[in-house]
Amino acid sequence: MSKKLKIGLFGFGCVGQGLYHVLNNSTGFKADIVKIAVKNKNKERTVGAELITYDKWEILNNPEIDVIVELIDDANEAFNIVSEALKKGKHVVTANKKLLAEHLEELYLLQQENNVSLLYEASACGSIPIIRSLEEYFDNEELEKVSGIFNGTTNYILTKTIAEKLSYNDALKQAQDKGFAETDPTNDVEGYDAKFKAIIIALHAFGLIIKPEDVLNIGITTLHDNDIKYASEKGYKIKLTPIIQRLEDNKVSVFVAPRFIKENNHLYNVDNEFNGVIVEGKFSGEQFLQGRGAGSYPTGAAVLSDISALSHGYKYEFKKYAQKKAPTFTNDVLIEAYLRYTSEEDLKRIVFDEITEQYTGKDYHYVVGKVNLKNLIANRDYILKHQLFISLVDEKVSRPDVTVKSSIKENVTTKELVNY
Amino acid sequence: MSKKLKIGLFGFGCVGQGLYHVLNNSTGFKADIVKIAVKNKNKERTVGAELITYDKWEILNNPEIDVIVELIDDANEAFNIVSEALKKGKHVVTANKKLLAEHLEELYLLQQENNVSLLYEASACGSIPIIRSLEEYFDNEELEKVSGIFNGTTNYILTKTIAEKLSYNDALKQAQDKGFAETDPTNDVEGYDAKFKAIIIALHAFGLIIKPEDVLNIGITTLHDNDIKYASEKGYKIKLTPIIQRLEDNKVSVFVAPRFIKENNHLYNVDNEFNGVIVEGKFSGEQFLQGRGAGSYPTGAAVLSDISALSHGYKYEFKKYAQKKAPTFTNDVLIEAYLRYTSEEDLKRIVFDEITEQYTGKDYHYVVGKVNLKNLIANRDYILKHQLFISLVDEKVSRPDVTVKSSIKENVTTKELVNY
Repeated sequence: MSKKLKIGLFGFGCVGQGLYHVLNNSTGFKADIVKIAVKNKNKERTVGAELITYDKWEILNNPEIDVIVELIDDANEAFNIVSEALKKGKHVVTANKKLLAEHLEELYLLQQENNVSLLYEASACGSIPIIRSLEEYFDNEELEKVSGIFNGTTNYILTKTIAEKLSYNDALKQAQDKGFAETDPTNDVEGYDAKFKAIIIALHAFGLIIKPEDVLNIGITTLHDNDIKYASEKGYKIKLTPIIQRLEDNKVSVFVAPRFIKENNHLYNVDNEFNGVIVEGKFSGEQFLQGRGAGSYPTGAAVLSDISALSHGYKYEFKKYAQKKAPTFTNDVLIEAYLRYTSEEDLKRIVFDEITEQYTGKDYHYVVGKVNLKNLIANRDYILKHQLFISLVDEKVSRPDVTVKSSIKENVTTKELVNY
Repeated sequence: MSKKLKIGLFGFGCVGQGLYHVLNNSTGFKADIVKIAVKNKNKERTVGAELITYDKWEILNNPEIDVIVELIDDANEAFNIVSEALKKGKHVVTANKKLLAEHLEELYLLQQENNVSLLYEASACGSIPIIRSLEEYFDNEELEKVSGIFNGTTNYILTKTIAEKLSYNDALKQAQDKGFAETDPTNDVEGYDAKFKAIIIALHAFGLIIKPEDVLNIGITTLHDNDIKYASEKGYKIKLTPIIQRLEDNKVSVFVAPRFIKENNHLYNVDNEFNGVIVEGKFSGEQFLQGRGAGSYPTGAAVLSDISALSHGYKYEFKKYAQKKAPTFTNDVLIEAYLRYTSEEDLKRIVFDEITEQYTGKDYHYVVGKVNLKNLIANRDYILKHQLFISLVDEKVSRPDVTVKSSIKENVTTKELVNY
């Protein structure tokens, strides 16, 4: 049925070592890790020196190696390695969401041109088999929405703010102390990581290839004690939730923002470092999947699952993308949001199409209402600079009424406005 | 990539009509339903008469038809149809859990001998892609446990008993009125349906082929208001949960019983007709999947997903079974249970190895402690006859200490004791 694979591994950090352990303790599946390429020559390694190399070409040029497993941090170098491997006819498994989100189309074409397989289940939501389920199980169903909690670091921080009444900074520090957040947490707390995953999922759920710079990510760095107090009083938890939503006229909206979650939502009970995904199908209804979003062994297990699939000749067929009836992407949507603001000037900048609640107090002010996503994109830097906080109060995303005039031009993207 | 399939459909009830609708509204996937075989000549049909036949051979002998979709109620006739179809080299999709559970080994061999594919994602937990995930994603990982809520009818009834303080009989009646339970609910409320699904899942999760008569199913028919009161006071919900648990020395235990569920368990929030599955892997940790366990469209969508997989040449590889290191089945395990009893005689029959709590009162008596599953198997009829109620208080299953002597012989099976 299957052949024994020869693996060249790039990176031997947390996930690489997890894979090594899981592979050696797998039942019934055997694959050889022939060589491991690492960068740091001074680091002590837990495997024999004969397995280690510092020269990527020693792996890429080895004809005996059929599969490259790429688990390094640097997304640019990862792209060099992965594209080189695909061109040389090697199959690739990667967990690098930034690499994938930034090069989806190129990587798709490289697979087609070289008739090789690139698998990346571990790139989105750790041990939850979301990409495989979308690709193989929901392939013929029109999906309405995919949403969830895709980032364990922010979920850990946000859980602590509500459950233990910690301030954002204290919760971040605790996450860093426990190893759930990196020293520079930007990628997680500003929502980039969740956005990359949303972009990967949007391809398999809706057949959409979108550029990261076109997708808004609002993070949690401006979360203030007053916002935590507001959420607690209302019985909400706060979660960072990517939303990928089908709209009328074959449009799809994709963005990442904090959200107040009520008790009746599946995501309410997805706490700490866990991830959860809700897939809403036209016919299958609502499916909910929860699992560990990160960690050495869970991610290693997801990588191993891809390696095993490769041994059976598996490749993504990108069925929704191939259908050529794929929807197009839009940012021209209304969302229902809470905005904690400071001055009247803020409300002049961030114009709500409709305000349903407004509160001005001694400590803080807020409005709740409908605002166009394009408006938030145009003001993302302003929001960060002035430490305002935006949170969805509902998961509903709608197309603006055509009669409502927007002062923002249709083709605005975050590319023009955000530097990352 | 895929070819257009010609389908012969058996049965045009709830799921058959759901499939017909879902198929005709699918995006990007086309398959022709060439003929539909039905039994009742007097029933009005929503499709043209030219599609309908009353003769199964008109489908089975049609060389143009490559796929049989079997969606009838009668498990014996279903076995005749499915085995005949496989022998004739046709692929088969079925949602019939009884058929599958009773003939797992024969059907496995028929697939191998005739080099055809039999898929049955819709047979277990409706729209949750559990079999595919076990077969393709957790194929190389040693799983520790699979448990959950596999039956929507009993879950609906049990939800109403706690949430609305309905008696078992009132809740059953409501379920019947709403179409969630059949006029003869035996198959659901005595736990047979959940057991059949557990047996199917045990094959894909642990490579185990077990006979239904060897597996204990305790249902919910003896649930009394006093049990509901007990559970409510303790803050429990009551769920009917199959448990498939790996134990020491490569043994696996499988059984179905009611269980008191605490708020911190994923299954606590799986209410009404929904299903939930928890998959615990050695490395991937705990995965939780929730979705609609039944219904015309969700089940139709699951059937369509199998048809689509067939069009890509997919077949289960029964990887865990093929590994030949599959564990063996045992009923010699201790479970922690609550037993509501009536007389001292009951406790002499159902001997607890260890009692941690005992209550005798005006209205009812109960004990909580450890009891051997073999003991419950031997007394299943007694429990039903005397209207006692058994419920797990913990999901932990353990092998009895070798020093503890059991008076029940090792090879006892429910076959000898239970008639169904």
